[in-house]
Amino acid sequence: MARHAALRERVLEANLALGHAGLVVLTFGNASAVDRDAGVMAIKPSGVSYEQLTADGVAIVDLETGAVVEGETRPSSDTPTHLVLYRAWPEDGGVVHTHSSFATAWAQALREIPCYGTTHADHFDGPVPVTRALTRAEIDGDYERTTGEAILETFAGLAVDPLDRPAVLVASHGPFTWGASVEAAVENAVALEEIAAGAFRTEQLHPGGGPIGDVLRRRHFRRKHGPAAYYGQTR
Amino acid sequence: MARHAALRERVLEANLALGHAGLVVLTFGNASAVDRDAGVMAIKPSGVSYEQLTADGVAIVDLETGAVVEGETRPSSDTPTHLVLYRAWPEDGGVVHTHSSFATAWAQALREIPCYGTTHADHFDGPVPVTRALTRAEIDGDYERTTGEAILETFAGLAVDPLDRPAVLVASHGPFTWGASVEAAVENAVALEEIAAGAFRTEQLHPGGGPIGDVLRRRHFRRKHGPAAYYGQTR
Amino acid sequence: MARHAALRERVLEANLALGHAGLVVLTFGNASAVDRDAGVMAIKPSGVSYEQLTADGVAIVDLETGAVVEGETRPSSDTPTHLVLYRAWPEDGGVVHTHSSFATAWAQALREIPCYGTTHADHFDGPVPVTRALTRAEIDGDYERTTGEAILETFAGLAVDPLDRPAVLVASHGPFTWGASVEAAVENAVALEEIAAGAFRTEQLHPGGGPIGDVLRRRHFRRKHGPAAYYGQTR
Amino acid sequence: MARHAALRERVLEANLALGHAGLVVLTFGNASAVDRDAGVMAIKPSGVSYEQLTADGVAIVDLETGAVVEGETRPSSDTPTHLVLYRAWPEDGGVVHTHSSFATAWAQALREIPCYGTTHADHFDGPVPVTRALTRAEIDGDYERTTGEAILETFAGLAVDPLDRPAVLVASHGPFTWGASVEAAVENAVALEEIAAGAFRTEQLHPGGGPIGDVLRRRHFRRKHGPAAYYGQTR
Repeated sequence: MARHAALRERVLEANLALGHAGLVVLTFGNASAVDRDAGVMAIKPSGVSYEQLTADGVAIVDLETGAVVEGETRPSSDTPTHLVLYRAWPEDGGVVHTHSSFATAWAQALREIPCYGTTHADHFDGPVPVTRALTRAEIDGDYERTTGEAILETFAGLAVDPLDRPAVLVASHGPFTWGASVEAAVENAVALEEIAAGAFRTEQLHPGGGPIGDVLRRRHFRRKHGPAAYYGQTR
Repeated sequence: MARHAALRERVLEANLALGHAGLVVLTFGNASAVDRDAGVMAIKPSGVSYEQLTADGVAIVDLETGAVVEGETRPSSDTPTHLVLYRAWPEDGGVVHTHSSFATAWAQALREIPCYGTTHADHFDGPVPVTRALTRAEIDGDYERTTGEAILETFAGLAVDPLDRPAVLVASHGPFTWGASVEAAVENAVALEEIAAGAFRTEQLHPGGGPIGDVLRRRHFRRKHGPAAYYGQTR
Repeated sequence: MARHAALRERVLEANLALGHAGLVVLTFGNASAVDRDAGVMAIKPSGVSYEQLTADGVAIVDLETGAVVEGETRPSSDTPTHLVLYRAWPEDGGVVHTHSSFATAWAQALREIPCYGTTHADHFDGPVPVTRALTRAEIDGDYERTTGEAILETFAGLAVDPLDRPAVLVASHGPFTWGASVEAAVENAVALEEIAAGAFRTEQLHPGGGPIGDVLRRRHFRRKHGPAAYYGQTR
Repeated sequence: MARHAALRERVLEANLALGHAGLVVLTFGNASAVDRDAGVMAIKPSGVSYEQLTADGVAIVDLETGAVVEGETRPSSDTPTHLVLYRAWPEDGGVVHTHSSFATAWAQALREIPCYGTTHADHFDGPVPVTRALTRAEIDGDYERTTGEAILETFAGLAVDPLDRPAVLVASHGPFTWGASVEAAVENAVALEEIAAGAFRTEQLHPGGGPIGDVLRRRHFRRKHGPAAYYGQTR
């Protein structure tokens, strides 16, 4: 069980972090990380409570085939969705799915989250999109894989680097986030729930201004991301 | 005091779990479990705070007569409601009653909770119904028993297996949930409060789509429940 | 400092309980208890944080004169309001004032809280009233005493035993609760915030029914309070 | 590293207090304190999580030039905003910036927070103002300094002592608070979030009265602040 030990540990911590941040109750969520050199993805096992989760219980699946390559647990039922994203987006290092309260409400309302302020712009370079509804045939078919493909389709229509807007609302379901690492994907899940709550309340206060302008939005995104970033200690 | 020790312990843990999940304050709730072989139900004692609750304090009542068969505490004043459900539904292993915040708001608004997303469908195969108001004679009479009968009447009108939609809103009062075990009933109480909050916020965002379609709803319910379930480790 | 030790300890615990229940932040609240035999009231000192509060720091004031009779701390600036209530209502054993979030919103909206369900009826036998606004002269005068008198005036107009509806919203300010003991007053403060949040959300869901009928309201109040109560272990 | 040790410690504690009070997640906020005799400001380092923050990591910058005078961390990207306030307001001893949930919603809605009750008046002697939007040139230019200047401009138009209304909402961004000390600035940040939530809910309840009158507002502010204050132990 020694292989992929570091990857397992990071995925364990990422899943626990979702609970500590108040983003999941019961077993409502899962985090995964990819090791592209080893050709594997590590993901939460299906239906296991966060209290019972261990590094050994993290499932390791083949990035290409989706087959379990190590361990005795069944991987999350959302595994095919995660795999679709990793295969399509080579810069994607981690994926998080939750049913966090406010983000899920936007997903259920079939609405994208407008960029109402700099908290949003600090993390997502534009509105957080919502996928189209799946067809009956898609739901009855390979449902979780098709969910991932609907996410790809949404981003294909946006002409944006998915790492610059690392979140989506799956219609009638809930949010997925991602990032260069699973730790970044968790941070984006936390930020998404904050901005989902903030946008909800902003609308109830009858905003005087609507979404913020492109200039302010890009200023904030670029002070934290990309070559001209001047936020943080490491750039 | 050694009889029914395991049952008492499970009911103690279930009641404590309600507090830990934020579903109850003060003494606003109670959980029970049934042992059909022994012909008894174990339930929280009336008006005892969660801090003072012990396994020995859990009340054991006869499933048929409702009489206390062991222990010195008075059982929850809602005992007759629990008994009605156990007697009518042979698959029911546990019952939980709370005044959890959002679910109670729907009950007070006399509104069923529509199925706005997959979080709901993962747990409840359709809207969470609300009972009719009781008549003056029913309130003045055997009130808690009649409350249980109103729940039965609600489900009789739905033609649904109560285990497939294990929750109800008692009009102007609050939610009851149940399940194959008391642990499942607690999980359903947690899920109910989540979906009650989510549906509340979905409506405030002016949903573009209304309740989800039957195809998506059943797909989600059946991936977690029944013979074709593929969620979790044990099926 | 040994006098009134038990009273001090209870008032300390009651004040700490307000913080643990999430009803107060910073120094936004105070609890007091009366010892009618000793002719004194014990109350939180003014502006002391809950972290720094000790039993020795609890202020003891004369019930008739309001003068500090023991200790070196200045009593809460709301002391005159508490005293007015104790003097008028001989059954009142404890008083709590908070700025708890939802109850304060109702006070600021100058609205009584309608009785929308049994959670409310379990604690308050009718709507929680709101006081009239004070006049300019009253605000500029003996403000805290007049606040108490406005509460008395509100209840005088209701023809209800204050112990049967142990809460009021002071207009544009926040809630006061009371009870046969300071522990009961704290419980009523917790219940009030719950029902204030619930009523807020009930209205946003467009209630189908309005306030509950008198029959249900009295049934619930009387199963917990008065000679025919059958809730709890001690009656 | 021994210089400014007490100042560093206080700034560390103030930043940690923001997390404990639920005002910040991730790295969404920063607190600073000034030592006018030493001519320096101490501030949170940029992008460091609250878990990893230490007193040694607190950045010390020159109050006049903004240059780092001690330590190896890069100061918060909001440092120029803090400096503008300290230079303009000689009584200002601490500044706090958060993206706390309800206050940020008001900022995003471009709305000042009306004074709907005494909780507000206890801390802020009038509505909490919102800045004007910055121009494109200002955003593209020295953005954080200009943000500070927009705050000064807002208060210049109000003819109020900034210490009597120690909070502002930066349009489309979030709140800044300040005070005679960094501890007072933190308290004001806590109070601001409370009153932002309260005002949000007051409006949803359809207030019967609108903002409170000047007489009540000033009574409350002055019982806590200024020469005639009679709240607390130290005056």
